[in-house]
Amino acid sequence: MKVGAITSRDNPLLVRLRKLNRDPNGYRKHGEVLIEGEHLCQAFAAAGTPRHALVSSEAWDEPVLRELASRAAAVAVVPAALLAEVSALESAPPLAFVIDWPGRGSLQPGRASIVLDRVQDPGNVGSILRSAAAFGFHQVVALAGSAALWSPKVVRAAMGAHVGLALVEVAAGESLAALDALEVPAIATSSHADAAIDTAELPSPCAWIVGHEGQGVAPELLARSRAVRIPQPGGQESLNVAVAAALCMYESTRRRSAS
Amino acid sequence: MKVGAITSRDNPLLVRLRKLNRDPNGYRKHGEVLIEGEHLCQAFAAAGTPRHALVSSEAWDEPVLRELASRAAAVAVVPAALLAEVSALESAPPLAFVIDWPGRGSLQPGRASIVLDRVQDPGNVGSILRSAAAFGFHQVVALAGSAALWSPKVVRAAMGAHVGLALVEVAAGESLAALDALEVPAIATSSHADAAIDTAELPSPCAWIVGHEGQGVAPELLARSRAVRIPQPGGQESLNVAVAAALCMYESTRRRSAS
Repeated sequence: MKVGAITSRDNPLLVRLRKLNRDPNGYRKHGEVLIEGEHLCQAFAAAGTPRHALVSSEAWDEPVLRELASRAAAVAVVPAALLAEVSALESAPPLAFVIDWPGRGSLQPGRASIVLDRVQDPGNVGSILRSAAAFGFHQVVALAGSAALWSPKVVRAAMGAHVGLALVEVAAGESLAALDALEVPAIATSSHADAAIDTAELPSPCAWIVGHEGQGVAPELLARSRAVRIPQPGGQESLNVAVAAALCMYESTRRRSAS
Repeated sequence: MKVGAITSRDNPLLVRLRKLNRDPNGYRKHGEVLIEGEHLCQAFAAAGTPRHALVSSEAWDEPVLRELASRAAAVAVVPAALLAEVSALESAPPLAFVIDWPGRGSLQPGRASIVLDRVQDPGNVGSILRSAAAFGFHQVVALAGSAALWSPKVVRAAMGAHVGLALVEVAAGESLAALDALEVPAIATSSHADAAIDTAELPSPCAWIVGHEGQGVAPELLARSRAVRIPQPGGQESLNVAVAAALCMYESTRRRSAS
């Protein structure tokens, strides 16, 4: 580990991170992801050696943050004002890591998966990653048009769930091929389905598909999937997509442990 | 219904709505709630006569919006720029209603309920209201310190679920009294509980208690509740609070329909 001080906002690392910060998809171009805050940095440090740690000049005196920062290959001590400029948060935390983006990922056939079909909201995507980690759906497949899995808002909302999940970003036009490559039955929720999720037979492993907040799952994907409905005795309210995704994974988990 | 044009930003209604917009708890002082956008206005128009409709000058020509606006006691046609100033949204929709705040509400004993103990995030609270409406938990009780139930962000995230739910806002210091007044068994989720939610006996009706995003349910409330854990075979990840709340209500619903 080498430690250096950055004092100029023209420093190449800061210039690059400011660009990264402006574009939710920027990590695909730059190959780097910014991880902010002690809790998230702790989670990612357990998974590999971060390329850089950025620490505010004040925080460098705190033993806990200093120890955590020291797990990176290089440490940059940066004035808080310059750190704030690269932060995606309103109030920049005193510690951030820069990690290598692991790439789009490759589908692993035969695994319990959750497939995101144009889920728009980063908070929803992050929440789904947390639920996937909790319920042991270790492969998350984002079809084109979904919120970018490694964008700052998704990373934030997932609270460390990225670590330990197999994350796959499918390129535009390859959704159907990806569904085939999973080699497990696909199931989608639909309010029109006859079968109810709590009593229908659920294959295991399976791939649950959840769709766009307004439009739901695309018809061409529905055509390749079994459909079940989530009984909603209170009326035909529609559930938030992150809630629906969690219910699907919970129900799969419950069945497995009951059988 | 009377129709008038507003052309000045000093109009008393607009002055009042700008104040309302600046304060998430403002509706308690002003006794009014702003409902924005066609979808939400449709939901609220079904529940009673709105006090005012505000329509942008351009939208007043659209038959659908004009018809919807006409359900209010009074219609104000307002230049889009002035409407934008009262909107809580980045891009103001062309139609908004002003409705009477129904007040803090009174607890109805013996009903299936969900209790929010300092749930902070308006998006989470809105999502919980949607799930409560879907699963037939018609009473939602917000203890002091939770995101304000009628704030613009919660109203937005709940997507119309406010209509048809019995919403109760409990004043500070009255949490334990409120729990007693429910007169149904209280259940909370805790990762330390022995009983698992999918196999434990669940009383019906019951009150599910969900807590603060970081701290969970307060100890004094836990002490009065049964506790169950949500099995998370993927590891000790913690679920988003809106997801956990939905799973609890789903499981109650599933048990009722299975028995």
